[in-house]
Amino acid sequence: MDQSAPPRGFTDDEFAHRTERCQQLMAERGMSALLVCTEPEVRYLTGFFTPFWQSPTRPWFTVVPSVGKPIAVIPSIGGPSMRATWIDDVRTWSSPRPLDDGVSLLIATLREVGGDGSVGLPMGPETHVRMPLKDLDLVREAVGGLLDATDVITSLRMVKSEAEIAKHRHICGLVSSAFEALPSILSTGMTEREAFRTFREELLRQGADDVPYLVGATGPGGIDDIIRQPSDREIDAGDLLIFDTGSTYDGYFSDFDRNFAFGHADQGAKDAYRAVWEATEAGLEAIRPGATTTDVFSAMNAVLKANGSLGNDVGRMGHGLGMQVTEWPSHTADDETELLENMVLTLEPGLVWAPGKAMVHEENLVVRADGAELLSRRAAPELPII
Amino acid sequence: MDQSAPPRGFTDDEFAHRTERCQQLMAERGMSALLVCTEPEVRYLTGFFTPFWQSPTRPWFTVVPSVGKPIAVIPSIGGPSMRATWIDDVRTWSSPRPLDDGVSLLIATLREVGGDGSVGLPMGPETHVRMPLKDLDLVREAVGGLLDATDVITSLRMVKSEAEIAKHRHICGLVSSAFEALPSILSTGMTEREAFRTFREELLRQGADDVPYLVGATGPGGIDDIIRQPSDREIDAGDLLIFDTGSTYDGYFSDFDRNFAFGHADQGAKDAYRAVWEATEAGLEAIRPGATTTDVFSAMNAVLKANGSLGNDVGRMGHGLGMQVTEWPSHTADDETELLENMVLTLEPGLVWAPGKAMVHEENLVVRADGAELLSRRAAPELPII
Repeated sequence: MDQSAPPRGFTDDEFAHRTERCQQLMAERGMSALLVCTEPEVRYLTGFFTPFWQSPTRPWFTVVPSVGKPIAVIPSIGGPSMRATWIDDVRTWSSPRPLDDGVSLLIATLREVGGDGSVGLPMGPETHVRMPLKDLDLVREAVGGLLDATDVITSLRMVKSEAEIAKHRHICGLVSSAFEALPSILSTGMTEREAFRTFREELLRQGADDVPYLVGATGPGGIDDIIRQPSDREIDAGDLLIFDTGSTYDGYFSDFDRNFAFGHADQGAKDAYRAVWEATEAGLEAIRPGATTTDVFSAMNAVLKANGSLGNDVGRMGHGLGMQVTEWPSHTADDETELLENMVLTLEPGLVWAPGKAMVHEENLVVRADGAELLSRRAAPELPII
Repeated sequence: MDQSAPPRGFTDDEFAHRTERCQQLMAERGMSALLVCTEPEVRYLTGFFTPFWQSPTRPWFTVVPSVGKPIAVIPSIGGPSMRATWIDDVRTWSSPRPLDDGVSLLIATLREVGGDGSVGLPMGPETHVRMPLKDLDLVREAVGGLLDATDVITSLRMVKSEAEIAKHRHICGLVSSAFEALPSILSTGMTEREAFRTFREELLRQGADDVPYLVGATGPGGIDDIIRQPSDREIDAGDLLIFDTGSTYDGYFSDFDRNFAFGHADQGAKDAYRAVWEATEAGLEAIRPGATTTDVFSAMNAVLKANGSLGNDVGRMGHGLGMQVTEWPSHTADDETELLENMVLTLEPGLVWAPGKAMVHEENLVVRADGAELLSRRAAPELPII
């Protein structure tokens, strides 16, 4: 076992603190209760952590009342796991039961703790409601309409605790080690699929719990699509390779990429790599509490423009990182979210240096009082050649 | 590379056939268009296949008109990948754009192909809408309300093509091999976490693309919670071990478990194992086109009752299997779904033989004209001892 691994889970104190902060935010918005039904939100408030969410069959609910611990309203299959968390009030029904899959139990719970029209539910950007729409309509009507609680959730989750940051630092370190091992385990003649498999195995060998997100591509002299799945294409001398992975430790993500060339590289590719590396430097310099995501975007964008960027289709240059591979906020031209201490962020400048040729670079960091603390080990300033 | 692996992806003919069948079902229900926005549905209709869905930031839409190919309405970051599929009409916007994240483009597309109040959207059991609720409300109003299209989707996806079945057979074979390797790679003294890591690596080594679902537990003489994550508990002589995995090949799942004992086992555990094995035999016997999921449930339940079952909290005894680890239908006392040829199903009888002691057994199969064809290699009839 890796002795440097931070402890699994969180203390009950941390969950109590999250809940109190949540209740403060609810009170400021006149909410008597908060309903959440997606994996990260339920996990954040209860500590319930299982891949069982892969199954779309059953809905899972957590209700935060105005005072006291959250209440779990869940399928009975999850009862033992939920009762092992800090939650005391676990209400279950035998699911699946299509005619009433927790709906009446949820409505009764919401009525017990929440007034008419004062129940909050996240319904804004980057959220969705993980229950059948027909059932949601029934709940919505039964509680007299729902309030948008997106900013309750973003306010809570965007700023990380030291315990959360330690998990990010650990997985980012493991992934850095796996990337650094790539030159000795990849070679021309491998197919993309073999290269993916080799990298995935190395990530697990280094100690990652899982690799939920792995994309990448190879291409002669450039890459046009950075969210691709591997093909049977053989890697050849002169190819560029990008791997971008979101790997996890104890449910917290890394999200950064690395670029390599095999044998040799065009000057265009080398210059593009250097430009996105320099853009990242500018982004790192711009990180400080009180600056905005737009300041960070502008700092990186200025470097890309000076290097002949043809624009990019990604829509942003980095984002929040946490229990999901991407979270609020986004570094865009008009996002304007104020950076706060202990936000965990990616910087992800992308440069299209010629039609169909993109170079994307990414690092992970935490915002500290005096600026950025890197979580990923900084990429080499020049395009590495394998 | 494994020479027995079936080809990746599907022919354009298969997508055309899916779309025509979809349009037939839509016509029967008076739908002018179908809107889907979840990963399996978009993939089923377009072939768009990427783990990028891990990121909750951006919504993705596919619209099926009454005639012609589906239309993709997606973030521009996915444009190159979507244009590489059989889809011709790919409409993109630069996302994330919280003030209008594809909403106006989607509404325009739906108005172009769909009449007032005649757009279908899955909103029933096991579905959810993967877009912000606020944006869904705008779309719903703009198109004059939405119709429930759950049974369009279930009718399509519950019956698999031979190309889909080949992918299931392949992954089930690989996972069977990994389970069969366990006695030689697991031993007492390992922690649960080490055992999980060892099994995950073995699944990848055998050729699985990914292991999105892996749960399991160990316990002295019995196991109380079958959806657990691993702990640092050391495996000891007399322990039972269950592993249940949903692994994938080309985006199609296996979903079955295996039980083992270390060193020795109580007679109670041995009897419980034999009972769930016999229940599975009864389930396999009950499988034929024209029978119902309730017939299958009843056949298995009779065996469990005869063996002193204290009931179980799982809510069902198996389910559909496909692009998701669980799909419609469910084997329950009142599900009553008619079995059709080429449905891919699990049988999953669970027996609580003493308080806090559960034994769950699972196999995967495809319904053929003459009965069940096993996809997993049948578990040993007696509890294997490592």
